[in-house]
Amino acid sequence: MPLAQRLPIRSTVAHARITVVDGDAVTSRRDSIATEEPLEIRAAGPGQEPVSVAVTMRTPGADMELAAGFLFTEGLVGSREEISTIRYCGPEGPEEQWYNVVTVHLRRPFDAGRFQRNFYATSSCGVCGKASIDQIEVRCPPLEPGPAVGRSVVAGLPDTARAAQDVFEATGGLHAAALFSAGGALAVLREDVGRHNAMDKVVGHELLAGRLPASEAIVLVSGRASFELVQKAAVAGIPVLCAVSAPSTLAVEAARRLGLTLVGFLRGSRFNVYAHPERIDLER
Amino acid sequence: MPLAQRLPIRSTVAHARITVVDGDAVTSRRDSIATEEPLEIRAAGPGQEPVSVAVTMRTPGADMELAAGFLFTEGLVGSREEISTIRYCGPEGPEEQWYNVVTVHLRRPFDAGRFQRNFYATSSCGVCGKASIDQIEVRCPPLEPGPAVGRSVVAGLPDTARAAQDVFEATGGLHAAALFSAGGALAVLREDVGRHNAMDKVVGHELLAGRLPASEAIVLVSGRASFELVQKAAVAGIPVLCAVSAPSTLAVEAARRLGLTLVGFLRGSRFNVYAHPERIDLER
Repeated sequence: MPLAQRLPIRSTVAHARITVVDGDAVTSRRDSIATEEPLEIRAAGPGQEPVSVAVTMRTPGADMELAAGFLFTEGLVGSREEISTIRYCGPEGPEEQWYNVVTVHLRRPFDAGRFQRNFYATSSCGVCGKASIDQIEVRCPPLEPGPAVGRSVVAGLPDTARAAQDVFEATGGLHAAALFSAGGALAVLREDVGRHNAMDKVVGHELLAGRLPASEAIVLVSGRASFELVQKAAVAGIPVLCAVSAPSTLAVEAARRLGLTLVGFLRGSRFNVYAHPERIDLER
Repeated sequence: MPLAQRLPIRSTVAHARITVVDGDAVTSRRDSIATEEPLEIRAAGPGQEPVSVAVTMRTPGADMELAAGFLFTEGLVGSREEISTIRYCGPEGPEEQWYNVVTVHLRRPFDAGRFQRNFYATSSCGVCGKASIDQIEVRCPPLEPGPAVGRSVVAGLPDTARAAQDVFEATGGLHAAALFSAGGALAVLREDVGRHNAMDKVVGHELLAGRLPASEAIVLVSGRASFELVQKAAVAGIPVLCAVSAPSTLAVEAARRLGLTLVGFLRGSRFNVYAHPERIDLER
């Protein structure tokens, strides 16, 4: 039996009539717009009432993967085996909410206070980047040496991803995260208005398929590389993170400490390596 | 006495040695990278112990504005008069944390449970975009008719903002939010790794200066327009929000319901108007 319930999903694209201004030419046309809706993620152990863990603004689609990936990358679920089922709450309340609440049922008790305690533990004596990195280091196993990735493979990732990004094509309004083999073959691509959601969907997909840690994989994200994305990649055991745009200081520091290869400004055959270049084979 | 404590701020840019790959040419160089560090925002009423309200990953700088803007746009502070002082926690704990915790002291009791109760109230019976818009509608006064903005003024905003974006210039890694007069004169620009933080800094700046609601202003954001940005602009009374890239469905729906003019894909003399085009003067 599949872990995740199958139900019709809300559309990822909607249409609206808009005004287009181009110099002094003004026209009206029907435009495609990427859907943004809140998703509430709940968790429950056997016999427990579901507890609300987070609400994220996301693009509908792959919601089960998003819920699973979020709980995993935030350290609330440690393995696929802990998950019993993932379901939309479905027919309760107004119809427009049916597919905006997902409950992850666990095979073991869910400690509702843990998420909050984690948060307050981090912040009780102040916060800083170093403490944030310390926290992930505790949670994630050291990354494996992983693959040697040819530089021409790295350079080719954005084109491969773009060809698979159908909603972006229509709306110009979505981030993407894509998982590749070390040879550059696309394994899974997910789109979302939030880059962190796209990443959680990819990680959730691999988690539910029993393929984590993804120690031979490369993940590509549109836009920038923040600390949060490095964290999510590291927790999933993905050793190479490539971003189309700039990384932040904390993304670079975290990647260096955690042993993750971080590529930024990946455009055409040109890219920068900010951490652990040893996984990039510059000869091919 | 100024509301916000003045202290040296952490640098918005750091430097790191990186590997640059350009086809088969590989070089090493010192690169500028935008700083990302957590900021914990605390709030306290007279005689109360400060309570942690949020931790956001942000670029240091304008932290007092960020804290004030965040509390205001999230509905936890209703006016400048409620704020007594805003301070870094300063010398307590490790030095790298001194400027990552800000406490907003209020002149009235702070209801610590309210933020959380708000959250659970929204989500108790499920969540949806409509409910999210309903929530802001309660909190923000209807937007005023506001200015008539010439289309050539709209078209000129990105160039004006870019000229003022000095950290982006150095790092390519920062979002920006910029406030303009109806004539297109730049009032204030803030940069941050998080677009919502840049917006909160701009709103906080205006709040602390006693200039809210900014009912004659235009705000420009780099990148996309999400629901969250429409919410923040509306709460600040800003009637025109322009984004360089695509809006989401919920951003468009919220703008239409709240009476906010929403411009997207603002590039050169071309842009789309997704909501309330009546404030754009197409003749000039």
